Amino acid sequence: MQGIDLDKRGELPLYEYLYRSIRDQVVDGRIASEERLPSRRALAERLGVSVVTVEGAYAQLVAEGYVVARPRRGYYAASLPSPPDMACAVPVASDKCPGEGLLAEDRPATGAVKYDLAHGASVASSGAARLWERSLRDVIAHEPDDVLYRMPTARGVPRLREAIAAHLARSRGMSVNPERIVIGAGAQVLYGLVAQLLREAGSVGVEDPGYARASETYRAHGLDVRYLPLDLEGVSSHALRTSGVAVAHVMPSHQFPTGRVMSVARRYELLGWAAEKPGRFIVEDDYDCELRLAGRPIPALASIDAAGSVVYLNTFSKSLSSALRIAYLVLPASLDAAFDERLGFLSTTVPAIDQVALARALESGAYERHVARYRRDMREVRDALVEGILDGPAGSRVRIEEADSGIHFVLAVDDDGRGERGIASAARGAGVGLAPLSSFAHVPEHAAGSDGRARFVVQYDGLSEESARAAARALESVL
Amino acid sequence: MQGIDLDKRGELPLYEYLYRSIRDQVVDGRIASEERLPSRRALAERLGVSVVTVEGAYAQLVAEGYVVARPRRGYYAASLPSPPDMACAVPVASDKCPGEGLLAEDRPATGAVKYDLAHGASVASSGAARLWERSLRDVIAHEPDDVLYRMPTARGVPRLREAIAAHLARSRGMSVNPERIVIGAGAQVLYGLVAQLLREAGSVGVEDPGYARASETYRAHGLDVRYLPLDLEGVSSHALRTSGVAVAHVMPSHQFPTGRVMSVARRYELLGWAAEKPGRFIVEDDYDCELRLAGRPIPALASIDAAGSVVYLNTFSKSLSSALRIAYLVLPASLDAAFDERLGFLSTTVPAIDQVALARALESGAYERHVARYRRDMREVRDALVEGILDGPAGSRVRIEEADSGIHFVLAVDDDGRGERGIASAARGAGVGLAPLSSFAHVPEHAAGSDGRARFVVQYDGLSEESARAAARALESVL
Repeated sequence: MQGIDLDKRGELPLYEYLYRSIRDQVVDGRIASEERLPSRRALAERLGVSVVTVEGAYAQLVAEGYVVARPRRGYYAASLPSPPDMACAVPVASDKCPGEGLLAEDRPATGAVKYDLAHGASVASSGAARLWERSLRDVIAHEPDDVLYRMPTARGVPRLREAIAAHLARSRGMSVNPERIVIGAGAQVLYGLVAQLLREAGSVGVEDPGYARASETYRAHGLDVRYLPLDLEGVSSHALRTSGVAVAHVMPSHQFPTGRVMSVARRYELLGWAAEKPGRFIVEDDYDCELRLAGRPIPALASIDAAGSVVYLNTFSKSLSSALRIAYLVLPASLDAAFDERLGFLSTTVPAIDQVALARALESGAYERHVARYRRDMREVRDALVEGILDGPAGSRVRIEEADSGIHFVLAVDDDGRGERGIASAARGAGVGLAPLSSFAHVPEHAAGSDGRARFVVQYDGLSEESARAAARALESVL
Repeated sequence: MQGIDLDKRGELPLYEYLYRSIRDQVVDGRIASEERLPSRRALAERLGVSVVTVEGAYAQLVAEGYVVARPRRGYYAASLPSPPDMACAVPVASDKCPGEGLLAEDRPATGAVKYDLAHGASVASSGAARLWERSLRDVIAHEPDDVLYRMPTARGVPRLREAIAAHLARSRGMSVNPERIVIGAGAQVLYGLVAQLLREAGSVGVEDPGYARASETYRAHGLDVRYLPLDLEGVSSHALRTSGVAVAHVMPSHQFPTGRVMSVARRYELLGWAAEKPGRFIVEDDYDCELRLAGRPIPALASIDAAGSVVYLNTFSKSLSSALRIAYLVLPASLDAAFDERLGFLSTTVPAIDQVALARALESGAYERHVARYRRDMREVRDALVEGILDGPAGSRVRIEEADSGIHFVLAVDDDGRGERGIASAARGAGVGLAPLSSFAHVPEHAAGSDGRARFVVQYDGLSEESARAAARALESVL
């Protein structure tokens, strides 16, 4: 490790600066692969900062995969594959991330289920609803008909696309050309555009377990869908390479449903795969990175994409409401002309009024304040639920996995022979909806853990702190 | 012709009852094909009604193709092909029709063009904007979050679908099951759903000249597009039969851009073609029938579709604003289950708030009052424009075609050798945008008239009465 000059940190917090400095040294090789890092205490003393500061930076580096923590041995730099072009490959970090999710949509009637942890919130948070109302009233009162009732261009209202680019820069450290942003009425509409744009690829690889609406959309557009298993670092590179696909749809920041964060090594592998042959593309579905509850968000694949292979996709469904139907994608330069040529005839799918209303909310900072509040609220709900479960009588038999990277986590339970379905059924009897992880897998083996635990995807954004505690109590008898 | 008992007319106006009676007799064969009808005067005397009443009924029958007028010889019943099932084939008439258009979208900068007759209105009418604002404010003030911020089901908010079904019954005499209505963010989204639903057909026939956004959408979804020429009765049956397609996209009420109304005979031929083989479907694009400016609207193909072959499609783009992005389709019973199976995973593409706002406007009658006012306004604009052109010095060299069936018409000009492009260029020099009919044709021969006239599609919904008069004056020097 080279020296770190704290005087150069400008206005960055110590923790942030330390994290960035070490990350950059790992990425550009100044810290060699497998090099041992100083202990937390040693580095804190050397730099004259508190151990807590170093701990925070190391934890983030470990979470993102730049650094590996080996119990009782210390911290080591990860070995990263060469990215396509190192000159452009330094990720830009930041402390928030944009977008939202696509998951909480048309759920079945849940019978006697009192606490539905199997689905996301069915109605927007009150904060999101009030924000949206204010924005709508504002635009109706202040914007001329010529703006609100004029058909936007195919890619959407320029003002909104500029506001999104500014938001991505502020909150996710991404540098995005607003011209390349395409607004659409929900992530599915955008998956459909991707399918039309990349039709010649013929097939697409998706993560399994994964998000069925994405694979169904690709299939409905005539693409052959190949299901790729995950390992702990993310989608399996081996499976990707042997699948024969030219397009991979992944959720690196917070995989749904496993909640896993793709390691940095795997990210570079993926980019390397895409850069090997023309016509290979990665669809980065960044649906809820904005709602990461602890630490910084993982830099987007699109930020370190030197070859122009990444279609970045995000939505306002999780942070505001899926009922608003607003999402966006960012085209890589390599698809810019193809989009105009093949899909430039399209009309936008989002009403002009809504596009302007969202632009105002982004411009005024109201959106970012809402997200910060919402994330705080969600952290409290999660803490109440997690503590309720761990502090209960079954606490020793359960494990909470991936609770920080977004607003769902995985509950792993020692399987006493009932199996995932049996436990879910018992939970339903106790008034709690629980979705087995395996219910999100197309190939059953892709959901099987090797540790004999039954796993459940817990979506808690429909709960309050209070109902989270009650849900945990209701689960006691079941677990 | 059998006797017509005026005592049975109930509350129908005489004109309406007379029209219906004769139409039904033509359809069910009580008036034989090619049978000569009584003269207007003779029938008026026989029934004891005014000649004007009979004239009105005959004019409507001629417009819809049930009756043929032969100059100096009189009126004859048309020869209608057998519909698939005569028992269900009697059209239900009414005096209005629903829907709106899809045309006035992202237009290029028009330079020095002061009166743009080449494109529809670029901004909604003030009446439409005020109606929408009121509806939005109302729903924000009065509807709960649980309604406005909850993700609707795949087909859309049930309340809106019921309001649309009631509106179709009232205004277009259509009997539609609300369950079969699918809401979508504009006609293009719905064309896309049709393409996904009927993917196996492999190809689709479209009218040529026609609506490029429809054919482009089909092509982007991987369907092979075949361009079918029109004759004066509508899309050529011969071309349809030899094209090899299983799906035909047509605009029977008001073909864009020719403005032609498909004859009843051709309608039955089309339905007969579809009923001959399973897997054949007709997409009826009824984009602006609501804005027919004189006489009654032509009954929808879907109303006389006994075999369940018609996907009915309509939009609120013309009657309200294309910037609102709301359209709908009505599935035939035969595609109901297939939709759920293949596309049931989809999320709706129209925000819940907008769906509820439109439902309120339909329920309260505000929408229908707006359309009636708007149609009145458009009639005045059209009259000012048409009279201005016909009364000008070039009046004898031009002909206005299809001015009643919707809010555009065709201007036919004696070609003095300049050709359509030359005249359009001269018009542009005089500050008037004029779109040659041929610019809407994929196959140039499909747009060529046989009478040596240059033709232009005139979209006047962006004009006021005053600017229509000014546009007519500006055209004087050109024509």
